[in-house]
Amino acid sequence: MEYGRLNERLIAELEAIVGSENASTRAEDLLCGSYEAVPLMEYKPDLILAPRTAEQVSRILLLANRHRIPVTPRGAGTSLAGNSLPVAGGICLDMSSMKAVLGFDGANQSIAVEPGVVCDTLNDYLAGRGFFFPPDPASSPAATIGGMVANNSGGNRALKYGVTRDHVLWLEAVLPTGEIIRTGSNTLKSVSGYDLTRLLIGSEGTLAVITKVGLKVMPLPEARAVSLYIFEGVEEAVRTAVEIKSSGILPSMLEFMDEPSTRASFEYAKMDCPEGCAVLVECDGRSGAVEREAELIHRIAMGRRPKFFERASSPEEAERLISARKAALPALSRIAPTIFMEDFTVPVAKIPEACARIASIPDGLGAPIGISTFGHIGEGNLHPNFLFDGRDPEQRRAFRKALDILYRDVVIPLGGSITGEHGVGLSRGDYMELEHGGKAVRLMRELKRVFDPNMILNPYKAKGGPWPPPLRGIGGAH
Amino acid sequence: MEYGRLNERLIAELEAIVGSENASTRAEDLLCGSYEAVPLMEYKPDLILAPRTAEQVSRILLLANRHRIPVTPRGAGTSLAGNSLPVAGGICLDMSSMKAVLGFDGANQSIAVEPGVVCDTLNDYLAGRGFFFPPDPASSPAATIGGMVANNSGGNRALKYGVTRDHVLWLEAVLPTGEIIRTGSNTLKSVSGYDLTRLLIGSEGTLAVITKVGLKVMPLPEARAVSLYIFEGVEEAVRTAVEIKSSGILPSMLEFMDEPSTRASFEYAKMDCPEGCAVLVECDGRSGAVEREAELIHRIAMGRRPKFFERASSPEEAERLISARKAALPALSRIAPTIFMEDFTVPVAKIPEACARIASIPDGLGAPIGISTFGHIGEGNLHPNFLFDGRDPEQRRAFRKALDILYRDVVIPLGGSITGEHGVGLSRGDYMELEHGGKAVRLMRELKRVFDPNMILNPYKAKGGPWPPPLRGIGGAH
Repeated sequence: MEYGRLNERLIAELEAIVGSENASTRAEDLLCGSYEAVPLMEYKPDLILAPRTAEQVSRILLLANRHRIPVTPRGAGTSLAGNSLPVAGGICLDMSSMKAVLGFDGANQSIAVEPGVVCDTLNDYLAGRGFFFPPDPASSPAATIGGMVANNSGGNRALKYGVTRDHVLWLEAVLPTGEIIRTGSNTLKSVSGYDLTRLLIGSEGTLAVITKVGLKVMPLPEARAVSLYIFEGVEEAVRTAVEIKSSGILPSMLEFMDEPSTRASFEYAKMDCPEGCAVLVECDGRSGAVEREAELIHRIAMGRRPKFFERASSPEEAERLISARKAALPALSRIAPTIFMEDFTVPVAKIPEACARIASIPDGLGAPIGISTFGHIGEGNLHPNFLFDGRDPEQRRAFRKALDILYRDVVIPLGGSITGEHGVGLSRGDYMELEHGGKAVRLMRELKRVFDPNMILNPYKAKGGPWPPPLRGIGGAH
Repeated sequence: MEYGRLNERLIAELEAIVGSENASTRAEDLLCGSYEAVPLMEYKPDLILAPRTAEQVSRILLLANRHRIPVTPRGAGTSLAGNSLPVAGGICLDMSSMKAVLGFDGANQSIAVEPGVVCDTLNDYLAGRGFFFPPDPASSPAATIGGMVANNSGGNRALKYGVTRDHVLWLEAVLPTGEIIRTGSNTLKSVSGYDLTRLLIGSEGTLAVITKVGLKVMPLPEARAVSLYIFEGVEEAVRTAVEIKSSGILPSMLEFMDEPSTRASFEYAKMDCPEGCAVLVECDGRSGAVEREAELIHRIAMGRRPKFFERASSPEEAERLISARKAALPALSRIAPTIFMEDFTVPVAKIPEACARIASIPDGLGAPIGISTFGHIGEGNLHPNFLFDGRDPEQRRAFRKALDILYRDVVIPLGGSITGEHGVGLSRGDYMELEHGGKAVRLMRELKRVFDPNMILNPYKAKGGPWPPPLRGIGGAH
């Protein structure tokens, strides 16, 4: 498929839809739309448009579809797999200006928002009303709800509360052909028709542009207890986590950091803790019950002889322990010029084996690639971070080889998934068939065609686009 | 579209796939496949096949697809909207023989089962291991997991624990064209590719035949507290429920019965309680915390001056209170020859208005149609039951009119969904466009075509089939 090109007349028409103050072709603005939180990937759009209404999005898509212009929706650009990069150029659809909170309904425990609302902003709004929106990615100070829906974001609380998918009631979305649809229902249950809502969730902006989101919210827990345990080896840390999960307790966080991660994080967060394999546990709920659960967890953890532990005795201490875990990525970023944060899941019992196999990946690479792993151990969702110097072509090649080993020889053979919460993006397209088989991937491509017959929406992305880009996308865009 | 017809040669070929002991064309067997829990609907299949493996299902579908023979999968036949009735004849695919528990993984909190496993049987198996599968339809002693997945069943515990959709990790399914696919991942998080799992969940056997299910299970709660409050009017009952939900408590059940329902249920269950508008609340979780929540709920409820209350002081008493609610349908069935149990949701705050409007429906019908309502008030999911004599054509017509008023004049104007947990089936196809708009319904039909180009799977059902059948199905089957 050949994409069309923007010319001056078309740009003027598109600018007129959003108003010239919400459109730009200036080099510095295009640069801002050309990268995201992932390194070594940069693709420049030809035009940035910041629509304010679903109606404007519809008119943009109608025109883009007629002229076969690629359109890539973008939230805060915090994605970690190239999910919002305009690989084929065209229009960067900056959704961050649509950021109104549209309506909160306490009895229904629901709220309607525009997609540009930032996660932490939403939670500040809800906290004043006694509620919260549980999904909690480390990027929550910047990540938008629209981006979280498009990527089906997880975060630290997914073990107990589930992921973004579990908290979306309905969506308003614009199809690439310009039609505005509404999916789902503003009620806690609905089984009316195929689940278009969840087909859009996690579709990474390849099926439709989300213009409104109806979310389910939850009552804020009354109390929480946070504790940190540091073990000598991975095995003890994982066994502790498994034993906690098997005890009848459902922690709100059950997090893991390996030795290099703790070393970097504790130094970064100025915490006086020894390096090692850390397990961070949070329980929340009713006071009394939470303290009892924390006590039970403490007994389980102490049975595995940690070399260090700390139990938060105030909300501030709890926050400090959690922030050390949240700081793992920025902390590691100081160690090497380039850091790629990968994202996979395996069944929980396979974590020790996954960790052991990952530790041996650098051996055969022929270039100095460091690996440091942290993640959401309770869900079997780990983030191995590859540390190297991306300016060196040798190291880049070695990193590609390391990725291949990770997904082909570790994740898939252990029965895992190639992405737990970051999405397929540009990084993981090569491994889709490996995980799902050819027929399921072909089915996904046919579904894409139903929504987007001209393949204009976020091309080369998510479901079948090989790596490295630019490359063939879903359904044969070249 | 014209369907093909089974002839003797084809029947012999199909029988050979499953073995003659698992196939039947005997009148008494065909009769068993011709009805389900819904009254006034009966459609006879031409052949019943009970496959034992996905491979057999694949070979059956391959042959049926080649000859355009309709195939309708069936679990226990407990559905309430004609979901498993073979409207176009053809093959009834009885999945109840595939009932093996395939593997439980405590650390991963997951279990794999075949689709014919019965819900209560699964929970008996899990209880011995300290876990449970939360979805809890009133039909749980008979309902199969495959049927629950196909209908995205809810039940009493959905307010706290969600519906079937929220507990499925992966599926093995056979496409109408015979290919076997595997969707999702045996891990608690995965965002790899479009969410085929949730596209199949709730698709009512119209997209694929489910042959294996991977479920997420949860630790059994330590304690529970159950109490029953009976109020004079609907308004007090609903306000009590809303206030409980707004208090920061998330009950595991928050159920409602109106006056006719309590009258029938309490008599049926031989309970010495006054009739009225009942609110049944269950909290579960840690002991101590549960008692405190029950106390808070009690204070809220007493503030609305119930005319009666009972707080269970033993697990047996708790079970007795819950069973009175679960018995509402059989209890009402004794009142009239025909009972149609409808199923809708509205935002919680709209429940009093919905109840008031429903109460006035019989006024203009010109025939004696009784209405009695119970349901899952915490989720805004109500079941108005229409009581009449289906042998009388006059009353049947009046019932059709009542349905129209319910969905067109009550549910949709109040921002609700035409089905919370029973599915579209044959009953609600007429109202799909009203809820979703024409474009979304057309999109659903196009998705159906991607999976089932010859429309052989459960024709006339779920997403676009008008009522009453036989009628045009999705994508134009006649």
